[in-house]
Amino acid sequence: MTPIQEIQAYLDRWVAAVRQHDIDAATQSHANDLVMFDVPEPLQRKALDEYRDSWRIYFESDPEGASRFELLESKIAASDDLAWAHALLVCTSDEEPAGRLTVCLRKVDGHWIVEHEHHSFPQKT
Amino acid sequence: MTPIQEIQAYLDRWVAAVRQHDIDAATQSHANDLVMFDVPEPLQRKALDEYRDSWRIYFESDPEGASRFELLESKIAASDDLAWAHALLVCTSDEEPAGRLTVCLRKVDGHWIVEHEHHSFPQKT
Repeated sequence: MTPIQEIQAYLDRWVAAVRQHDIDAATQSHANDLVMFDVPEPLQRKALDEYRDSWRIYFESDPEGASRFELLESKIAASDDLAWAHALLVCTSDEEPAGRLTVCLRKVDGHWIVEHEHHSFPQKT
Repeated sequence: MTPIQEIQAYLDRWVAAVRQHDIDAATQSHANDLVMFDVPEPLQRKALDEYRDSWRIYFESDPEGASRFELLESKIAASDDLAWAHALLVCTSDEEPAGRLTVCLRKVDGHWIVEHEHHSFPQKT
């Protein structure tokens, strides 16, 4: 597989894990010291435990949204050892995308590791 | 300079341009087809004209915030031709960081080009 195909395969596995509300599978490719910018406060979540917490909170607060979780208009850039991707997120009970996602990865010992994720909703104007 | 030093230098120039409310300088390293996820709606802004618009709106709505613009806790990952960076944003009249930034770049013909930016505020809980 090319690096772009590898990132696409990773994203497909990650989305499937979220749709199944499977925290272990959704967080297995993440760095222990990742930095997450999540939709709700706090301003940032640091480390894998806090990233796992964000999924627990989401699965409890919007199980229907998680079951619909889907990436739209995704774009991936990947070289041999760095990659980034962005997409719109279907992540609520609505079928329209409500959120935005950016994922930043690094290849370590042959495995792609997520070092940063940014999830957000735009502010209503 | 190393790729990481090049990205740091780019971010320093970009922050200086924002603080000076200089739209041309703040948008000179951006791809014509970049995708921006901004703090306010809409869900996404596509293309350089819409990216320039986002700065015009910001400079008009919060000139004091723009003059204080600053990145905190920034982290950069860069290889020869791809890079990403994230940081907290001081971007309001408050001295505390209120926003989050992720920037994704690609080197094209020897120049770093921003292909994606994600700016957001967390939702109050």
